[in-house]
Amino acid sequence: MDQTTDGTGKFTFEAIAYYRSDRRFRFEVPRQGVLTHSGGIVEFLPHRNFDQALRDLEGFDRIWLIYTFHLNSHWKPFVRPPRAGLGKKKVSVFATRAPHRPNMIGLSCVRLHHVKGLRLQVSEADLLDGTPILDVKPYLPYCDSFPDAQTGWLQGLQPEHFQVSIHREARELMREIYEFNRLDLANFCQLQLEYEPANNHNKRIRVIDSEACLFFLGCRTWRIYYCVDWDQRHVEVLWVATGYSAEELAPNAPDPYHDKAFHRSFMQRHPLPEQFDKPGRVPRPGESWS
Amino acid sequence: MDQTTDGTGKFTFEAIAYYRSDRRFRFEVPRQGVLTHSGGIVEFLPHRNFDQALRDLEGFDRIWLIYTFHLNSHWKPFVRPPRAGLGKKKVSVFATRAPHRPNMIGLSCVRLHHVKGLRLQVSEADLLDGTPILDVKPYLPYCDSFPDAQTGWLQGLQPEHFQVSIHREARELMREIYEFNRLDLANFCQLQLEYEPANNHNKRIRVIDSEACLFFLGCRTWRIYYCVDWDQRHVEVLWVATGYSAEELAPNAPDPYHDKAFHRSFMQRHPLPEQFDKPGRVPRPGESWS
Repeated sequence: MDQTTDGTGKFTFEAIAYYRSDRRFRFEVPRQGVLTHSGGIVEFLPHRNFDQALRDLEGFDRIWLIYTFHLNSHWKPFVRPPRAGLGKKKVSVFATRAPHRPNMIGLSCVRLHHVKGLRLQVSEADLLDGTPILDVKPYLPYCDSFPDAQTGWLQGLQPEHFQVSIHREARELMREIYEFNRLDLANFCQLQLEYEPANNHNKRIRVIDSEACLFFLGCRTWRIYYCVDWDQRHVEVLWVATGYSAEELAPNAPDPYHDKAFHRSFMQRHPLPEQFDKPGRVPRPGESWS
Repeated sequence: MDQTTDGTGKFTFEAIAYYRSDRRFRFEVPRQGVLTHSGGIVEFLPHRNFDQALRDLEGFDRIWLIYTFHLNSHWKPFVRPPRAGLGKKKVSVFATRAPHRPNMIGLSCVRLHHVKGLRLQVSEADLLDGTPILDVKPYLPYCDSFPDAQTGWLQGLQPEHFQVSIHREARELMREIYEFNRLDLANFCQLQLEYEPANNHNKRIRVIDSEACLFFLGCRTWRIYYCVDWDQRHVEVLWVATGYSAEELAPNAPDPYHDKAFHRSFMQRHPLPEQFDKPGRVPRPGESWS
């Protein structure tokens, strides 16, 4: 309704809805929605007749969300996609779904669970909490589904999938952290480690013991310890500890994230097991891990 | 690059490319691109590094075009889709791909043939010449293709398909008209008659002889004569004649479309065969044709 074109090829669109979920940080969403199992709500603005415009959407398994990458502000012709096998090679942006586009428009096919007034319950969405939605369209297989379409530079680059399991003790530690600040480390591990669990190009991964295939992964102020079984394509998450050094945890050290008191008490209650207590070594790109 | 959000949820996007084809009128494009065989060019704006941003797109079978419905200016909560079986029932707009949306954003998956500098040769596009393109993304089957997705109100409404053939003589007449003004009546027949060839709710269809299943279809200032074989699901296009009355073709009648001289000469060279020369009767909705 607020759309205009003044002959210069500019168009103004207005958010009609916002995405609501507990995923707030970029590192919490997968590369594509189908890789996640988390759910969310598409909440439409009131007093605009959108409830009427949504009535017949019930019964569609899937819908398209067209939205804006509201956290990005500039585009670039080449991007480095989070993919195996490319090394440091960049790819032209229109050949990717990366957010740094001339028009920051995102497109995701999500599963629709139900429609209730102005709220759509969806899942398999790779959106962050607060993402402005510009349009919703039904998914129509006859014009949207082409399972055999070739995918250019991506062909053959599909990396191997690893099963990620989280040890009971690590899960307990994660639960405690989640209760403190709603940071979902279990989801983060799944996203970061199911592909290329030792690739430190785009991930905060460090080697602890290359023979034992022991690593840690940084997530905000935390470290997640895990080992990789290369033959079985299996990642086991073993422990969670503070990412702060002893110096950083000193009583009068600055505390920009307001979480150091919690870290101190956490580490007192759950001291780092000895086998993880080794200085992290930065792996070199292309270094063999197995 | 020209994107802004001022906290009010408004976003300004700029056309990065325009679609070029010989389809200029809304009635020349199918409901979905996969129903057409016509091709076109996505022509990117120069001096913006878009040639670099397109380099790795070669090799993808299909791409998404995100564009604006630049000919529409207002939205409505309910629309009447061009579908069989609905009668006059309206459907809520977000449950359709209709252009009258709060944000007039269109989404089409088109076949990519090749990339040359700033130009993409595509086909199966349901876009009109001059459509502003906002984004291009690669089609990725693993996150875009869901062949079995259920389609709500559309389920079971897929109308029967008719084969449309154009008689040699009619094709000759169409060729003559195409040479006069680039109006592609053959494409128009295909789009209008392959589904519901007697449905006059959204089409300018008139009955000539209901026993012989003879009809005509209006296209701008022309009439296209055809008969329908209901058992064989076959439409045969037989003839093309003027849509002007004798009175409208009188020497001093007004000529807003500047085509009456051509119509007069055309009708002199190709007089209407006797069997089509009957007054058209407006069919009643739901009337049986067979």
